[in-house]
Amino acid sequence: MRTSADPAQLSINTATVREQWRLPDIIAGLARHGIRGISPWRDQVAATGLKDTATRIRDAGLVVTGLCRGGMFPAEDRQGRQAALDDNRRAVDEAATLGARCLVLVVGGLPKDRTGRIVSKDLGGARAMVRDGVGELLEHARSAGVPLAIEPLHPMYAADRACINTLGQANDLCDELAPKGADGLGVAVDVYHVWWDPALRREIERAGAAERLFAYHICDWLVPTTDLLNDRGMMGDGVIDLPQIRGWMEGAGYRGLHEVEIFSTNTWWRRDPDEVLLTCRRRHADVS
Amino acid sequence: MRTSADPAQLSINTATVREQWRLPDIIAGLARHGIRGISPWRDQVAATGLKDTATRIRDAGLVVTGLCRGGMFPAEDRQGRQAALDDNRRAVDEAATLGARCLVLVVGGLPKDRTGRIVSKDLGGARAMVRDGVGELLEHARSAGVPLAIEPLHPMYAADRACINTLGQANDLCDELAPKGADGLGVAVDVYHVWWDPALRREIERAGAAERLFAYHICDWLVPTTDLLNDRGMMGDGVIDLPQIRGWMEGAGYRGLHEVEIFSTNTWWRRDPDEVLLTCRRRHADVS
Repeated sequence: MRTSADPAQLSINTATVREQWRLPDIIAGLARHGIRGISPWRDQVAATGLKDTATRIRDAGLVVTGLCRGGMFPAEDRQGRQAALDDNRRAVDEAATLGARCLVLVVGGLPKDRTGRIVSKDLGGARAMVRDGVGELLEHARSAGVPLAIEPLHPMYAADRACINTLGQANDLCDELAPKGADGLGVAVDVYHVWWDPALRREIERAGAAERLFAYHICDWLVPTTDLLNDRGMMGDGVIDLPQIRGWMEGAGYRGLHEVEIFSTNTWWRRDPDEVLLTCRRRHADVS
Repeated sequence: MRTSADPAQLSINTATVREQWRLPDIIAGLARHGIRGISPWRDQVAATGLKDTATRIRDAGLVVTGLCRGGMFPAEDRQGRQAALDDNRRAVDEAATLGARCLVLVVGGLPKDRTGRIVSKDLGGARAMVRDGVGELLEHARSAGVPLAIEPLHPMYAADRACINTLGQANDLCDELAPKGADGLGVAVDVYHVWWDPALRREIERAGAAERLFAYHICDWLVPTTDLLNDRGMMGDGVIDLPQIRGWMEGAGYRGLHEVEIFSTNTWWRRDPDEVLLTCRRRHADVS
């Protein structure tokens, strides 16, 4: 028999109700629903103000399970890569101000120009740019005391969002740049991106052994999925064996929160946000 | 400098023009356009009649680069799995009658009931059903002289179409069941499914060393992709470095044809089919 998830371990990624509420509403809503964790997005933080956000989160007693997001390292030219690095350093500083457990890195896909157009098909080259970018950012992140969490993204995002597409790849990159989690570099495991991977259990154990399991994101994979980006499911509505993956995470030593991150144009972004949070609570406890 | 693809190596998967033409039209169209290879789907063959199809293909002088498709092994219960196996044996016999170079296996995802509803989240169990199903089918395929080609499908199809999602996984399964291609089991490499994989080159080389590279399918990955199933791109319209992957295939010893397989509701299925074939010819020679 599998044990239930502990309600005290629930965190909400603010994207989950971003269409209904601004960040101050979300912070108040989480407190009202007895939810302990939050993971905000940088655009929401900027809209509210960094210091104001930090104060509100602290006053609400919330744990910041991550800041979304840094990354997007590949670019057409040196100036583009430098601009990305500068922006990532600001993201690190924001994460420090918010007391975030980590800065989540969506590392970027193929290099783009300033207009966002992909300018190269060299995936190996993009991966080298990611390695170099993370390596350069790491020094600043360490001095700021902000752990960096590489989030492997589903292979369907390899071209435009992230060319790190398996947990094994993320582990390899961590091994190369900072072999122990205490060195400031680790991974964010999001079930949506990695649930299909036959090597998932082994790679979670590998990340656990290196103490680099910095974050755990949950939602569900719907069948059919009608949109590549914004058709994620609520836990229990799809096909992912969430208790099994949570068991692997816990077996590998993960003790952090479980962050619900759902992009859902047609369902959850249309519902009453209080109902969404209630559903997150219930599904987290019952089927995650 | 990369050499161009040899026009004589072009094959067309009949799905590419399936909305415009029935199979006899496609066979005639390929001959008219000087295209040497064809890979038909079983429903099209059934609609035309197996013997009639075989005669038409022989008369047109076409190489059958594969029959699409066998597989779909996982099922809710023993009867369901037996029904799948029986159907796969018929597919083997059809492939033998058509003189197909291989029967392509889309192995199936999570187990479904008779209505097509997914009834389990046990992905490991589904993979075991696939191993058992391929293993059982192999004996019949060998006696019929039909090579089986496992096609790893993109991870976004893991739940509903195929739980073999990387070439490494397919290689592992072949190693377990029939270590050499001459034993009748190999792989079909479709760039759409595997282009993102950081281990792709290594796994192509591994498959080549075992002489199990039975088929090579091409198209392109569009950015953005608007539908998970039917928004594949024409070669050159997306982000896949096709000459690089072809180079890896050739370096690993692949000498077979290059089969264009494009599912495209909004573009190529709406175009004049002669224009589609002309475009396939041109793009194959220029950018593949």
